[in-house]
Amino acid sequence: MIEGTTSQEIIKEIAISSPSKIVLIVIDGLGGLPHPETGKTELETANIPNLDQLAAKGICGLADPVAPGITPGSAPGHLALFGYDPVRCIIGRGILEAVGIGFDLQPGDIAARGNFCTIDKRGLVIDRRAGRVPNEKCVALSKLLDEQVIRQVRVFVSPVREHRFVAVFRGEGLALEVSDSDPLLTGVPPKPISALNPEAGKLAIVANEFIAQAKTVLAKHYPANMVLLRGFSQSPHLPSMTEIYKLKPAAIASYPMYRGLAKLVGMEVLPTGTTIEEEFQTLKQNYADYDFFFLHIKPADNAGEDGDFDRRVEIFEQFDRNMPELIKLNPDVIVVAGDHSTPAMLKGHSWHPVPVLLYSRWCRPDRVNKFSESACASGALGRFPATQVMPLAMANALKLTKFGA
Amino acid sequence: MIEGTTSQEIIKEIAISSPSKIVLIVIDGLGGLPHPETGKTELETANIPNLDQLAAKGICGLADPVAPGITPGSAPGHLALFGYDPVRCIIGRGILEAVGIGFDLQPGDIAARGNFCTIDKRGLVIDRRAGRVPNEKCVALSKLLDEQVIRQVRVFVSPVREHRFVAVFRGEGLALEVSDSDPLLTGVPPKPISALNPEAGKLAIVANEFIAQAKTVLAKHYPANMVLLRGFSQSPHLPSMTEIYKLKPAAIASYPMYRGLAKLVGMEVLPTGTTIEEEFQTLKQNYADYDFFFLHIKPADNAGEDGDFDRRVEIFEQFDRNMPELIKLNPDVIVVAGDHSTPAMLKGHSWHPVPVLLYSRWCRPDRVNKFSESACASGALGRFPATQVMPLAMANALKLTKFGA
Repeated sequence: MIEGTTSQEIIKEIAISSPSKIVLIVIDGLGGLPHPETGKTELETANIPNLDQLAAKGICGLADPVAPGITPGSAPGHLALFGYDPVRCIIGRGILEAVGIGFDLQPGDIAARGNFCTIDKRGLVIDRRAGRVPNEKCVALSKLLDEQVIRQVRVFVSPVREHRFVAVFRGEGLALEVSDSDPLLTGVPPKPISALNPEAGKLAIVANEFIAQAKTVLAKHYPANMVLLRGFSQSPHLPSMTEIYKLKPAAIASYPMYRGLAKLVGMEVLPTGTTIEEEFQTLKQNYADYDFFFLHIKPADNAGEDGDFDRRVEIFEQFDRNMPELIKLNPDVIVVAGDHSTPAMLKGHSWHPVPVLLYSRWCRPDRVNKFSESACASGALGRFPATQVMPLAMANALKLTKFGA
Repeated sequence: MIEGTTSQEIIKEIAISSPSKIVLIVIDGLGGLPHPETGKTELETANIPNLDQLAAKGICGLADPVAPGITPGSAPGHLALFGYDPVRCIIGRGILEAVGIGFDLQPGDIAARGNFCTIDKRGLVIDRRAGRVPNEKCVALSKLLDEQVIRQVRVFVSPVREHRFVAVFRGEGLALEVSDSDPLLTGVPPKPISALNPEAGKLAIVANEFIAQAKTVLAKHYPANMVLLRGFSQSPHLPSMTEIYKLKPAAIASYPMYRGLAKLVGMEVLPTGTTIEEEFQTLKQNYADYDFFFLHIKPADNAGEDGDFDRRVEIFEQFDRNMPELIKLNPDVIVVAGDHSTPAMLKGHSWHPVPVLLYSRWCRPDRVNKFSESACASGALGRFPATQVMPLAMANALKLTKFGA
């Protein structure tokens, strides 16, 4: 069992079950950077009266998902918000993809993240994503590969979306420590997979055999005429949120990865649609049945990765228009946070701390009355590790008893 | 190998080499305390338009070198800024002096910091610094001691400056754990050196023998008629900054101790002059050849130790006048920080957190537009451990890749 934070150990002892409800909203890539012309970030530019009002009634701050200066991937960014130490709880890419598509992992299974890619006649990778093939193509090609037979092991191949699939290796004597075949570059050939220790010899052999077969099978499917594998990994054994917090937690997320992350920490994943409106609808419909909701809002991150400042502004405004639906439900605790920043100016995840807003009847409000990076910088939560979000939410829901005599 | 901070372990994994440049300026003893008449600290009194302007464009905060309430020595104050855990990376005074004068330490060498001191006829210490003898005298007397022969071991004696020398003990069977002879008081005799464990018996014997010989040799050299030894220590094995950060780092420092500290973490120490202007000149001349510069500004600390409030103000202003030279070089990241506070009102190092200013194109500026203790207290870096300065500098130089999937 991978251990959590020190706070988690304490919280396990003092958490109590109660009818109060917590809604944790994670706006993916929430934090931004100022536009050079206006000096305002995406959030500072957006017209978000409902969030501003909630900030005025709540307490705000800036959270570091992993540590100051560290740019988090999606997994550490979310695990921290769920209260797990993101440095000690490492989740491999393969497992994350597998869990995200609902693949039924068995003990010992090893999963790798796969890309359909394009190679030229010399065998050099010319597009690591095969022009982002359509989802239907991804399904069809994954099925082709899934039907191949490899000696000694079963290799399950499942489509994710576009160029992305998961390969799950199941069999006796497989150990994890192999290198990736994905060179992470174009103009070079895929790398042969090699064992990083003697125990992993068998996996290296079967993975290379799988890749060789895939190359043959895909030869006529240009641009998806080859595969790249990386992130070979096994399931971590995390204590569940029910075990730690005594919560009955549910996840509402339209993207596979976040559903997968939620499952890893024992949340029930609710079926939902792809829009923000549909996610809020799912929350409303299931509100009576759980005492903790993780609501994941994806598009702000995508817009950030695309460098689209204005679209981020619009998405924040769209989100804000849905807030009254949430307020009407009257949760005991509302947290609005990000898993990391994705400034349009940087076109990617960044290390900048994320704005956090916590509202409850018992939050002891600060003087912040706008929800933005600069306003949160002067909030009473201060600058704090994101792993403290859950203890604060639990406390504000009156779900934690006294520590010590 | 002594381990660094958790962040250092992560950073080792995600650091990349790139052409971007970081300049870390450490103003020794930067933080101060308000003058009772004006209510303003030294920094708040000084006219420092260039620093204020950089603060307005940058992000500010207050850093604790070791921990709140802990007054750091020079070594922990600097190690923290270089990203090393100052509590786990202990560097003895002897080693620090030896490295600082460029002494070629061999594995197993044990170094002690030595003072020439004055004893009276009864053998009581009446001046622990022998009236701060001139440097020439320090050189001559060190040579006399260096020529003495001790049974079984070689004792190298090298001058540092004024009353200060280094004694390096080299030989078989020496272990470190001995007490100091320096009583740190006047009016008492030097203390005999004693072994703190059985293995250190030999070092205690030879050190006492060395001191006895020194007393004889120095008898006619009043006021420098005796020696005091303290801080017996061996070289720590710190991972280099190149190993951790993949940087090519250079140090510009006029005082031996800071050059020594820089060497211990693998920086190349550049020859420079003794004034702030000469140090900036050295930076300019070597700017093309490195991607990280540690620039050490000493005199503010000296003025603080002397309790000279006005001189500290002048030094900050003098430093500020040199800032345009730095700005012209256009480094990707500029950090201005202190290794600890040295308020004139306290005439010594103090526990007060130090103002930190970080400027880069990507820093997400806060609302601070003055560089001072009180302004930095409301900066978006918040109050943070000084070990986070390097991760933040690396991130802002875009020298860190993403952590986790």
